[in-house]
Amino acid sequence: MPKPQHHLFVCQNERDADNPRGSCKRCGSEAVLKAFKKYISDNRLRDRVEFDGSTCMDTCAWGPAMVVYPENVWYGKVTPEDVPEIVQAILEGRIVERLRVPDEAVRKS
Amino acid sequence: MPKPQHHLFVCQNERDADNPRGSCKRCGSEAVLKAFKKYISDNRLRDRVEFDGSTCMDTCAWGPAMVVYPENVWYGKVTPEDVPEIVQAILEGRIVERLRVPDEAVRKS
Repeated sequence: MPKPQHHLFVCQNERDADNPRGSCKRCGSEAVLKAFKKYISDNRLRDRVEFDGSTCMDTCAWGPAMVVYPENVWYGKVTPEDVPEIVQAILEGRIVERLRVPDEAVRKS
Repeated sequence: MPKPQHHLFVCQNERDADNPRGSCKRCGSEAVLKAFKKYISDNRLRDRVEFDGSTCMDTCAWGPAMVVYPENVWYGKVTPEDVPEIVQAILEGRIVERLRVPDEAVRKS
C-alpha cells in the first residue's frame, strides 16, 4: 500500500461504565472502526484511505469522535451507518456537515 | 485546547513476543508516547501539538513507528531521546531526516 492520501482515526478510548465523562468505546466506536475497515476494504479503497483507532482525543462529549487528516476535519456521534457517506465525502473533498464537530468543540471534553 | 495545529500518532500495537513481525509496543512505543506527553506538557505546547496512540499503521519493520499530520511525515525507530528534536522540528516546519521512514516503506510491513 502507498503512503495514505487520507488517514482517519476513530477514538477507541474506554472508561468505566459509571464514569460521568462517558467514552467513545461505550458509545460504539469499535463498531464504527470495524465499519470503516469493511467499507474501505470491500470497495478496494485502502490505497486511498487509511483507518486506525486512537487513544482519547479529548472530544468525549461527541463520542464516537474521529478525525480525518490531512484535512483536520472532526466528526462526532458517528454511527456505522454514516461510514459510506464519510468515506465518499473524503474521496470527493467534501465535508459531511451534519456530523461535523464545530472547531470550538474539538478537544474540549 | 484549540483544534490541534499538528497531531502526531505513535503506534501502540502489541503482538505476541514470538511473532516474527514484531510490534511497535515491544520495541518501546509506550515509552515514546509517554515522552511526547511529558515534553509537550512540560513545555506548554499542548495548544500546538496533539499526541495520541494508534492501532497498527502497517509500518512494523520501523517500530516504534509514528506519523505527524497534517504534514504526513512518518518516523521510525523512534526513542524517547528523539522526542525533543521531533517536536521542535514540527514547530519549525522541518523534518528530522535521520528518523524519516522513506515513502516507499510506509505501510509496507
